[in-house]
Amino acid sequence: MKRLTKQDIDDQLKGLKGWEYKENYIFKNFIFQTFFEAFTLLCKAAFIAEKLDHHPDWSGVYNKVTLKLNTHDAGGVTQKDIDFAIEIEKSM
Amino acid sequence: MKRLTKQDIDDQLKGLKGWEYKENYIFKNFIFQTFFEAFTLLCKAAFIAEKLDHHPDWSGVYNKVTLKLNTHDAGGVTQKDIDFAIEIEKSM
Repeated sequence: MKRLTKQDIDDQLKGLKGWEYKENYIFKNFIFQTFFEAFTLLCKAAFIAEKLDHHPDWSGVYNKVTLKLNTHDAGGVTQKDIDFAIEIEKSM
Repeated sequence: MKRLTKQDIDDQLKGLKGWEYKENYIFKNFIFQTFFEAFTLLCKAAFIAEKLDHHPDWSGVYNKVTLKLNTHDAGGVTQKDIDFAIEIEKSM
């Protein structure tokens, strides 16, 4: 899996609301009304992670969740990370 | 809900494997064999949080999960935080 250039990443993130590129990863901060909704996102992320065999870093508290993605073996962001973001956005 | 003293907290954490007190919160780092097990813990934490109406900070990646607890309104650790840790350990 080849590391994407900053230009590739920026181009692909344009269509993905709220996703940003920073240093060597992409991330999104989600804010919901309730814990129930935040945990629902986490469940979706877990299913997508298993389907794609690619697992995000996650963190959160109550109604907030942050998902961070990079591809360790490639030392940066690859198409796998973008694909994860695409799948999550489809699930919203 | 009254903030507990360091002595109270240390005494109560003695029976709770892996839980530690640091600054103004208690935390535990969980390491599992698989993502499946890590996510199972997160599900248990979500159910306990709703039951106790007390929600931890959480973070993790793949087979690792960290749970952090304090009681914002009390500015430190209260019995609610210890009760959460007790419930999680019962569920293991």
